[in-house]
Amino acid sequence: MPGRAIEFWYDFASTYSYLSAMRIDRLAAAAGVEVVWRPFLLGPIFKAQGWDSSPFAIYPAKGRHMVRDLERTAATRGLSFRMPRPFPAHSLLAARIALLGEEDGWVAPFSKGVFEAEFAHGADIAESATLARPLDDLGFDSADVLRRAGAPENKERLRARSEQAQARGIFGAPTFITRDGELFWGDDRLEQALDWPHNS
Amino acid sequence: MPGRAIEFWYDFASTYSYLSAMRIDRLAAAAGVEVVWRPFLLGPIFKAQGWDSSPFAIYPAKGRHMVRDLERTAATRGLSFRMPRPFPAHSLLAARIALLGEEDGWVAPFSKGVFEAEFAHGADIAESATLARPLDDLGFDSADVLRRAGAPENKERLRARSEQAQARGIFGAPTFITRDGELFWGDDRLEQALDWPHNS
Repeated sequence: MPGRAIEFWYDFASTYSYLSAMRIDRLAAAAGVEVVWRPFLLGPIFKAQGWDSSPFAIYPAKGRHMVRDLERTAATRGLSFRMPRPFPAHSLLAARIALLGEEDGWVAPFSKGVFEAEFAHGADIAESATLARPLDDLGFDSADVLRRAGAPENKERLRARSEQAQARGIFGAPTFITRDGELFWGDDRLEQALDWPHNS
Repeated sequence: MPGRAIEFWYDFASTYSYLSAMRIDRLAAAAGVEVVWRPFLLGPIFKAQGWDSSPFAIYPAKGRHMVRDLERTAATRGLSFRMPRPFPAHSLLAARIALLGEEDGWVAPFSKGVFEAEFAHGADIAESATLARPLDDLGFDSADVLRRAGAPENKERLRARSEQAQARGIFGAPTFITRDGELFWGDDRLEQALDWPHNS
């Protein structure tokens, strides 16, 4: 019988995905739940809803609260936080690399490295140099990984992944999905997702 | 020196305002914080953002998750929950009555009665009969209160209140504002708002 698991769907441009990425491994280990990291792109889903950017960029009052909320919540968790410029960041390349990491087993440490560079240090994750560093830290030939990330079949995998997200009912990030298909949206629901009793 | 206090801004059509209304008095008492109930209408703020209804009605995937999220969260809190029809409810009359209650000191029990009728029992709060019951429970002449609620000066007070909400940076409900002007959005942030250290 497979153990309890949740899929963690995230976009690298998402501030609340950062909050979850920095705590999900610890909380899931304590709860005895396996985490399956699922990078995807929110952009196509937002476009389908008629948005050409993040709702935090489109609606100023909502955006101001989000920044303040992140500052407060990060502080209570002992996390650094700063808003990257531009916001939302262009997360396409990071997501393509993360898909390779999913195949090869390094998606979690790579993703955490990207989130930290972006939201703790304010680096621009659209830049290859920003993404090369967490790859270097993992001991990889970053130039080679960046080349493989841009291969047509990998681009196609990310397109399919983001379509799958929409088909699963995902409309924002982070989203957590249990084995029995229960969907939880938002960092605030991580604990509920990990405690979900019918997760098998 | 005044004690610690938070303003609780809510719309009677808001599902997450229901969650907060049913627990805020208990949590605030435990935290030694006074609660100032502030009914208002979200409709004009949504309209200014280009929405002609609740975002939960406009975006189906978001709406489906909200219903499920409310079911799950209400269950963990021992609360009944059902979606009212129509959703969002027409909350104008309830808000007008609540403003009278604010003046006369019965806004909290009246508001809780309305939220329970709507979200625990599925009653339509656009109906005078639905709103008469919590007024009767408080021992009032409900016909008289309903008349006063419709007086021009009371209608004007609600318009001013909703404009004030927008001017304060409110974009959703529930919203909590501390004495020093710190704004917290969402039932999930009630604890943070009550714990805010600079609340004076």
